[in-house]
Amino acid sequence: MSRAAKVGLGLDFGTESVRAVLVDLTGAERGGATAGYPHGQIIDHLPHCSEPLPADFALQHPDDWLASAKKAVRKAMVQINLDPRTIIGIGVDFTSCTVLPALADGTPLCRLPRFAREPHAWPKLWKHHGAKSQTDRMNIVARDRDESFLRRYGDIIGLEWFFPKILEVIEQAPSVAAATEVWLEAGDWLVWQLVNGPAAELPRSTCQAGYKGLWSEADGFPSSEYFAAVHPDLRTVLAKKLPGRFVAPGTAAGELCQMAAVSLGLVPGVPVSAAIIDAHAAVPGVGAAGTGTLVLVLGTSACHMLNAAEEKFVPGVAGVVKDGILPGLYGYETGQAAVGDAFDWLRRLAGHHGFDKLQSAAAAVAPGADGVLCLDWFNGCRTPLMDGSLTATFTGLALKHGLGHLYRALLEASACGLRWIVELLDDHNVKVKRLIATGGLAHQNPLFVQVIADMLSQPVEIHGSKQGPARGAAVLGVLAAGREVSGFPSVTAAVRTMGSPPGLKSKRVIPQRSSKNAYQRLYSQYRRLAEQLKQS
Amino acid sequence: MSRAAKVGLGLDFGTESVRAVLVDLTGAERGGATAGYPHGQIIDHLPHCSEPLPADFALQHPDDWLASAKKAVRKAMVQINLDPRTIIGIGVDFTSCTVLPALADGTPLCRLPRFAREPHAWPKLWKHHGAKSQTDRMNIVARDRDESFLRRYGDIIGLEWFFPKILEVIEQAPSVAAATEVWLEAGDWLVWQLVNGPAAELPRSTCQAGYKGLWSEADGFPSSEYFAAVHPDLRTVLAKKLPGRFVAPGTAAGELCQMAAVSLGLVPGVPVSAAIIDAHAAVPGVGAAGTGTLVLVLGTSACHMLNAAEEKFVPGVAGVVKDGILPGLYGYETGQAAVGDAFDWLRRLAGHHGFDKLQSAAAAVAPGADGVLCLDWFNGCRTPLMDGSLTATFTGLALKHGLGHLYRALLEASACGLRWIVELLDDHNVKVKRLIATGGLAHQNPLFVQVIADMLSQPVEIHGSKQGPARGAAVLGVLAAGREVSGFPSVTAAVRTMGSPPGLKSKRVIPQRSSKNAYQRLYSQYRRLAEQLKQS
Repeated sequence: MSRAAKVGLGLDFGTESVRAVLVDLTGAERGGATAGYPHGQIIDHLPHCSEPLPADFALQHPDDWLASAKKAVRKAMVQINLDPRTIIGIGVDFTSCTVLPALADGTPLCRLPRFAREPHAWPKLWKHHGAKSQTDRMNIVARDRDESFLRRYGDIIGLEWFFPKILEVIEQAPSVAAATEVWLEAGDWLVWQLVNGPAAELPRSTCQAGYKGLWSEADGFPSSEYFAAVHPDLRTVLAKKLPGRFVAPGTAAGELCQMAAVSLGLVPGVPVSAAIIDAHAAVPGVGAAGTGTLVLVLGTSACHMLNAAEEKFVPGVAGVVKDGILPGLYGYETGQAAVGDAFDWLRRLAGHHGFDKLQSAAAAVAPGADGVLCLDWFNGCRTPLMDGSLTATFTGLALKHGLGHLYRALLEASACGLRWIVELLDDHNVKVKRLIATGGLAHQNPLFVQVIADMLSQPVEIHGSKQGPARGAAVLGVLAAGREVSGFPSVTAAVRTMGSPPGLKSKRVIPQRSSKNAYQRLYSQYRRLAEQLKQS
Repeated sequence: MSRAAKVGLGLDFGTESVRAVLVDLTGAERGGATAGYPHGQIIDHLPHCSEPLPADFALQHPDDWLASAKKAVRKAMVQINLDPRTIIGIGVDFTSCTVLPALADGTPLCRLPRFAREPHAWPKLWKHHGAKSQTDRMNIVARDRDESFLRRYGDIIGLEWFFPKILEVIEQAPSVAAATEVWLEAGDWLVWQLVNGPAAELPRSTCQAGYKGLWSEADGFPSSEYFAAVHPDLRTVLAKKLPGRFVAPGTAAGELCQMAAVSLGLVPGVPVSAAIIDAHAAVPGVGAAGTGTLVLVLGTSACHMLNAAEEKFVPGVAGVVKDGILPGLYGYETGQAAVGDAFDWLRRLAGHHGFDKLQSAAAAVAPGADGVLCLDWFNGCRTPLMDGSLTATFTGLALKHGLGHLYRALLEASACGLRWIVELLDDHNVKVKRLIATGGLAHQNPLFVQVIADMLSQPVEIHGSKQGPARGAAVLGVLAAGREVSGFPSVTAAVRTMGSPPGLKSKRVIPQRSSKNAYQRLYSQYRRLAEQLKQS
């Protein structure tokens, strides 16, 4: 069979919708479809419940994931009239850290009538920020005990991670915590639904566990003593409520079960890869097989990922995980918590004009935004400060400034934040040699990409596909099928071939020399302002 | 003749228009009319000239002042069919420091064809900010020489003042400076046009000279040595180009000349008061005859003025002038450089919605604006930092915030700025016992006045007339007519009777106890942020 006759299915579970994409082994995108979650993000109140949720809550409905995946896969298959037998592997990427409590048979607690009106029984979306005090305590105890696991996370446990979210439930809703038999990342839950099997065998992704669950292959989870020092019930979670085995993305977590196959309209028995974090899936998705390539996933938030041959501990870098993104390499994850979200905030503030108006107004303003300086912490600062409670700032404002100045300042601030990350990696000998941009903003916001290239004085390649993560999930599905079935001699070969096929042209954005000095000055000002305001 | 049969005419020259108001001696506003300046503010380019002006330029056309005054006076007179002989005095208030170069016969230099295209030959409006480096040098030299006049101005010469604007012309347009025979405040020029006479006799206002021209009754202008140390040509200005005599507001500068009487449709010979700064005119305008009353003139910018029996030197207070506002008292001037202008900036940013939408959105947000903190320096900080180059800031921003948060934060910042001024005066034993608000914003923005009352924990009286400064000018015109003609036994009697007649009810805004703690916290945060950002 030719490569074109074998197809990987990628399932990309985002914040608002799931996308199914069908990529054949030549790297051609054969079809794809998106289905929105019926309940979207659950932010205001639970379904069938009028009581308002706290302001920092962001939940999801687990049934949405299954229903929307069914819809998207069937639509994509029908669209190109694909024989389901041509699908050799399935990959799943998922937002993270999205956490849910379940029974031993996988039933999410929120499905039980007695917990339907209890917010803490529902899956907590990555951006849920209710675990502030819990995160603080976990950090204080870890620092007091000089826990070595901290080094892998830039010395800080993040507000959005696995254990702070669990601890929040333990403290805020003890009955939910008591009823929970299995704590799970949503991506792992989804893969478990696809492959079925007992809880003891449930496949947990080394990616999610490594980046968000304080786990490493060498050391496992933090010690029982550490968890006990934080909260006795957390020790119980470690001892009894984290069943399963660890599986790396690109490795088979199991085979598609009969029930899932019927639902999705596929054939049972197809290998399913362990889940991967959505942003991380973009790395194979854009064909970044080697080391030194920083993949910029530019969306509502931004993740910037890179593989390196060595493990370095970089303060403020959210995670360094062996085999975290691709087998055999150390995956570095960094991020910015609000990018497209922040741009959209300004657009809404300005009376919901389209972005076109903002773009042209900002393009008419010279680099440096005529003195308007922004700190882009609209959802806290992820890398390198790892502090979700930090807030954004506009300064340098005068009566003469308009929307174009503010928007330009915001784009520039976002680019400054990225430059900070690149310099940080560089300072710790994790070298960035190449930049590939993907995600919605990379395609929709050419001014932003130009500002990034100018700020970094480095070309940015915009990857030709608009489906970086979904494409990456498909590649991982093919890897899970194994060398025999796929015919690829190595991971590198599969990633290169499927991620950046010759037919998929990327666009190269060249830095403009003219703005170099202005941006050098601006970047210094940004860092100075960050220094001033990070403690207030 | 009864008091109702005698009328004072007030002419209030603002930034965009002139207002004529007719107030009889009982304090009743008998009529009034406004006429916009045909050229408005000259900001983009000179008339008949396409070359753009620098960004910090703000000029006016002197012919506008005369033409618009003619229109407004005639309209007001016709409106109530007033016999011009009932007018016993004319008062003039004017924006300040608005400066123009003229020939010895009063001809503004910009009227000469050879200077028509030279921006520096045109009157520079108060808000013109082109004299930054000149202001800096004047301050450095004054501090180096330990000049005692500085104490009267809170130790700082302002960017918008008389001599920095002259020095700007000396340095930037030497041919204009050389051709200038008389340097003038625009208010003085206008009064000179009304009363006529040789340059040697031209009436200069002690108010303008005292607050903006570094002059005092006791010491005159700064020394010739000081000016020479700044620039040799400035000494020449002092020696030769400042002819005239000093006249206090409320004192006759002369009588209406034949030509002006014909133009305005009045009878010649009517006494004309020396000019007063527009904001300062509000003090008699609202009937604040005694000491300890802070008059808040709330407009595009804000001036807060107060009379006291003693002279205290308060760092950061723009001016303390004997007889500066009312005879026999020390007038203290403080101000905020952008208030209504800043509110309007946000309104424009938000897509030009009406203020109603902003008001209701801000009213729905609790005191403290949910963490959004603003520094209101959209046009620099006047009192107490006296630094026109400072810029505004919004901080504490997060994705959850909307327009209502930003607008509320801005209102609160403006109120914090005012509280800072009141505390500063209080710390130097200049006690504020009563607050009277006037100016457009006092009437149009009830939420703002409430925030002020809450922030200061003190009631605010909104004066019943919307024409505080114009009414004050009319009072000063009546004072200029003298005791014999007006029948008022004292200045106090005239100000009280005409400024706050029984028929003119003021509205009392009471502080809400519920917001006291929140505003105490917010004010501390504002002061801390000001401290952090004032040097950056």
